[in-house]
Formats: sequence, C-alpha cells, structure tokens
Amino acid sequence: MTHISDLDTPAALVDVPRMQGNIDRMQARMDRLGVRFRPHVKTSKCLPVVQAQLDAGARGITVSTLKEAEEFFDAGIDDILYAVCIAPARLPRALALQRRGCDLKLVTDSVAGAEAIARFGKAHGEVFEAWIEIDTDGNRSGIPPEGDALLAVGRALHDGGARLGGVMAHAGSSYDHDRPEALRAAAEQERHGTVRAAERLRQAGLPCPVVSVGSTPTALSAQALDGVTEVRAGVYVFFDLVMLNVGVCTMDEIALSVLTTVIGHQPEKGWAIVDAGWMAMSRDRGTQKQKHDFGYGQVCMEDGTPIAGYVMDSANQEHGILCHADSIDHGITERFPVGTRLRILPNHACATAAQHPEYHAIFPGDEVRTWPRFYGW
Amino acid sequence: MTHISDLDTPAALVDVPRMQGNIDRMQARMDRLGVRFRPHVKTSKCLPVVQAQLDAGARGITVSTLKEAEEFFDAGIDDILYAVCIAPARLPRALALQRRGCDLKLVTDSVAGAEAIARFGKAHGEVFEAWIEIDTDGNRSGIPPEGDALLAVGRALHDGGARLGGVMAHAGSSYDHDRPEALRAAAEQERHGTVRAAERLRQAGLPCPVVSVGSTPTALSAQALDGVTEVRAGVYVFFDLVMLNVGVCTMDEIALSVLTTVIGHQPEKGWAIVDAGWMAMSRDRGTQKQKHDFGYGQVCMEDGTPIAGYVMDSANQEHGILCHADSIDHGITERFPVGTRLRILPNHACATAAQHPEYHAIFPGDEVRTWPRFYGW
Repeated sequence: MTHISDLDTPAALVDVPRMQGNIDRMQARMDRLGVRFRPHVKTSKCLPVVQAQLDAGARGITVSTLKEAEEFFDAGIDDILYAVCIAPARLPRALALQRRGCDLKLVTDSVAGAEAIARFGKAHGEVFEAWIEIDTDGNRSGIPPEGDALLAVGRALHDGGARLGGVMAHAGSSYDHDRPEALRAAAEQERHGTVRAAERLRQAGLPCPVVSVGSTPTALSAQALDGVTEVRAGVYVFFDLVMLNVGVCTMDEIALSVLTTVIGHQPEKGWAIVDAGWMAMSRDRGTQKQKHDFGYGQVCMEDGTPIAGYVMDSANQEHGILCHADSIDHGITERFPVGTRLRILPNHACATAAQHPEYHAIFPGDEVRTWPRFYGW
Repeated sequence: MTHISDLDTPAALVDVPRMQGNIDRMQARMDRLGVRFRPHVKTSKCLPVVQAQLDAGARGITVSTLKEAEEFFDAGIDDILYAVCIAPARLPRALALQRRGCDLKLVTDSVAGAEAIARFGKAHGEVFEAWIEIDTDGNRSGIPPEGDALLAVGRALHDGGARLGGVMAHAGSSYDHDRPEALRAAAEQERHGTVRAAERLRQAGLPCPVVSVGSTPTALSAQALDGVTEVRAGVYVFFDLVMLNVGVCTMDEIALSVLTTVIGHQPEKGWAIVDAGWMAMSRDRGTQKQKHDFGYGQVCMEDGTPIAGYVMDSANQEHGILCHADSIDHGITERFPVGTRLRILPNHACATAAQHPEYHAIFPGDEVRTWPRFYGW
C-alpha cells in the first residue's frame, strides 16, 4: 500500500474525505432547492472524481472543451453540456460525438453561431441541441435577457432546424464578492435574468425546457431557485483559497494541495525554498486582490495542518519561496530543515490541478491511490 | 500535408525559422565569447527543439526536473545539469540515471544538501558530481561568493567523497531590467560573482573546473565572459513579450504563439471572445509590471502579423477577452467575426508552452509537423 511518505514531490494530493464532504454538501443543497445538479468537470478532468459526483446524485456533466466531452463519453457518461460557445470549425467533432450516441448540448450567444450550428446539422442530416448563453452580470459572454438579440438567436436555432434546449448563465462576477448578502444578491440576479430570458423565449413561441444557472459561490448562496431546472458548479469539489476569501468554504474543506520538499534557505531573508514553483502551483494569483493575499498558497504541515502566517510568497518555474507573510523568520532553517515535506493549499484549484498529470488521492488511513487526469484540447 | 488552416484551436504554434534564428544568434554569440553553451530545456521540453540546439553547437543540456533528465537521457543526451538543488529523497532517482550511464550533474547550496549527496553516493558506491549554486543578485537560491558558507559546502562535497564539478549562478533579477547598460551590468555582476566563487574554492585547494552562468537577458548582454566556461539560457529559443520588454528580442523574433478562434462578442464593450483562455495562455501576467502591459498577450492575424493595440485583456479557463488596449472598438464584431482565427503572442513562453501537450511546428511553405512535449515530474 502506498502512503504519502512514499510520494516524490511536487505532487497533487486530493483529500478524499474532504472532497466527498464537498460533493455531499452541494448535492444536498441542490436536492433541497429542488433542482438537478450538473457538475462542471473542468476542475478535476478526472473520472473517479466525476464518478463520485454522479454517485451522489448529479445528473449529467458540464465540460469546457470537446476533449473533456470525448474523454467522459468514452468513460460511459452521455449527458454532456459543452458550456463554451462552439467555434463553427469545431462542429465536425461535435457531430462525431453525437453520432456515437452522446446526448451533447452545444451553446451559442450569437446569430452567426446559431446559424452555423443549424446549418451544419441540416447539411449532415442531424439535429443539434443548443442552449443560449445569457449574460446576467456583464462578466463575460452571453446575451442580455432583455432586447432583440435573444429572440433573434432563438429563432435562428429553432427556425434553422436545431433543437432549442434551453438557456444557461454563469455568474462569474460572484467571485468578486465576499459578504453573504452580496452573494445571495448575485445568485438572485443570475436566477432572475436567466428565468426572464426563458420566459421571453416561451412568450415568443419558442421552446425553452432547461433553465441552467451556476457558479460555486451562487450555487452555495441561492435562497430559492424558482424557475430554474438545473445548477452547475465546478470548483466546489476541491475548493481553494479564492473560495475561502469569497466565504463559501473553510480552510479545512480545501481538498486539493501540493506536496513539496524544502531544498534550501536564505536565512537572513527568512526564506525556505521548496521544489514546488509555478509549474506545480500555476501562475494563478487569484487572492492578490481579495481580503487576504496568500501569495501562491498557504503553507501546511505534511499532514495538512495549516501553519498560520506562512505562505508561498513568490515562485519560479520549479522553485517556491516560503516565508512568514508579515515578519522575517530568522529561524526558518531550523523550522523547516532541508528535506522537510510540506503541503501548499492553492489559490485556484482548477489552475493548480491543470499542472499535474495525476492526483494522489488520500483515503482514510493514509492510503494513497493514483487518479489520472488529462489535459489539452 | 497539414497546414495551419487544418488545426483545431487552441493550439501552440512554433515558427521554426524564427526559432532557428534565435538558436543561431545565441550560439554565434557564445562562440564569439569563447564559452560552451548549455541550453535550458525546461522552456520547450521537446526533443526536436533540443536537437536543433545541439545541432547548432550546444554542449549538453540544463534541466529543471529529473523527469526532463530521464526523458532526454532516454533520447540519447547524456551530459545533463539538473539545475535545481536536489531534495535528498530524490537521490535514488539520480542514482538510477547515473547507473544507466547518464553524466548527471547535481546542484546544492547548503552543507545539509552537500552532505546528503556525498553520503548517499558513498552508501551506494557511486561518486556523484555536484556543482555549488552561487547567489550573485539576491534573487532566489544559492550562496554568496564571499563568506564561509561557500567553502563549507565545497568541503562537505569534496571531503565527503563527491566530485565538486564547479559553480553555477542564474541572474534571475536581470528580468527586472529594460536598458542595455543595466543588462550589461547585470551580466557582469553575474560573471564576477561566479568567477570569484570559483577562485575562492581553488584558493582553498578545492577543485572547480566549471564556471557556469546564465539567463537569457544576461547571455545576450554580456560583453566579456573572462573566467566563465559555460553559459545557460532557456527562453531565448522561443522568446516572448517579457523578453521584448526587457529589450533582448523584437516582436518578429517571438517563435511561440497560440492559435485561437473568435467565438463571440460583447460589441458595446468592444470585446471579441476567443477559445483560448488561461488554460491555453497560462495565468502568467509577466508584462503587468513592465513598461508595456500586454494583458495575456498580443493579438496577431492568423499569419502572425501583429495587430497594433489589440491584446487579450482578461481570461477565464477557456475564454479569452480581446479588445483594443486604449479605446472601445465598437466595430469589433465586423473586424473579428465569429470564426476568425488569430494568433496570440504570450507573455512567458515557458508558462504558455507548459499548458500544451504538443507543438505545431510551422515550417517554410506553411507545412505543419506535430512535435510532442511532456510535462509532470
């Protein structure tokens, strides 16, 4: 049996009981709110993680790339929302998936995109299902719930011969909040705009069976989801320091960490140097503008216990510099001698996980199993 | 024959003539300065790139992980410097490489590290070669050229039975400069400190055959390298926008770019949305504090021609937001319609390349060949 002490560093660790707790909390919340839950698998890109989400009650998955759709369809999952507006040149890959039996849902937010989907399907004798992306907070893509564009896109899909399956929104701006009342308001804004878009489509005689919303902060803050049929969220499965600052998790719910080894010091500066740099942590500095800046991550003992005040302050490709955030620890060499193994909690789990070819899943009793993850497009 | 127009997006492109020009410029410079050149392969992690460096005259390679050492040794390259202080627990992997015939050089900057290397070698009947890392600019790891620590580490290696092969330094702070005179001074500081460390070791009766320095900015700025035997550099092979701001390359020498497709717009904000987000570009914002902030990258036409003023302003996992840096382009939808293919020049080639499982190498005549790259530890 493999133990943490057998692992070479740097290595991505998943605390399985914490992950299961995060999955159970989210699913129970969705069950109470009376909506289906469709996890976003871009965070983990790992079958055992996604299987645990489905086993807990999730219905279908959300993906950010066709590679994810292909990998998880090959693993037996067939209800898949590809939640990024599809580039027209990529439609042949979507067609191939659908013809193999995948219940694939595409997304668009423009007449040009809608026409391309409908036209390509018609040319190949297939009906694509597409959802319209709604912009409820001005954060990224999508079309406003009000205005002519929504109906124009809906008609381009429906009249063009595609299946208009619903509307979806992602309240990305919820990441900017850190008070419960602001998060509840963001969730209500996301819900209201998306439901309003669905109503307008229906009033115009267009079908809109699905109303899909979601982000981890809004999913964990919504008080009611009237009119919504499903919720999506991704990073909740691992959580991270950005989510801690937003206020939707505690430090001991963060399930992803990077195991690292001390390889040197600059004692007069109070630095310990470790073998996890930005290659292992990612360059994500998501806590930089939040209420607590953790640098590149929070330092913990090898067993996962946080060491208050110690952060990864800066990073080169394969070097991380650890120090006390507020003072120079002149005893750093004795505190963390060469060879000391530590864990670093990441700013952004999606970005940190993406740097690793595999997870080391830590089960109760310190048993470690290797879980592969994939990357690329 | 594959062409750029056949590639799905996002995709990492390498302009082979530009890369070859970068390799030839660096090698010619090293030849003129009378030193060996040992490229750092952490940038590309790709055999055809490294082979081009060796074919041009490079002698041996530098790696940042034992995985790189193992991969390139398996490909037939045996003169390898592992340029990160080794964690003692990783010595068995180094031993295995050496026993297979690899001429592996380790690095240390502490008595604890030196003793671990010597002791482990002695326990296994092998002599490890180790170089001492020198800190010439207070940027990261290494020990100062002056002071007792240098001789203590040297003796711990030599007297402990390891082979003290030399000294090495990396002037990481050269990245902070952007004037030729400051870069020349940084190069001279790196040279002077490293040569001084070698002289002190020799005066103490210790061997120090190799004096190794290097960073892309200092390698391209040094006016003389008296006492230096070899230079290392990595990112010069591709260059990037950080190096453009430092002043050691032009925009038309940047050999790495990310091919992407426009998937939507927010016309009232002047945004075009593309299918390359931070997953394709990395989260590296290295130009943020430089004289010209390129956001997540410089926008170019599909053929690589830069489009002045247009940058990737922000990024989600699989979405990039392109806009004019200084004004709202209300005609963005017509300028870059859905389906338009563009290239983005990256801030930091090492970080962007690391996000991709393969390069698409573009040869003269637009012929594309796939070059695999690896990741992980």
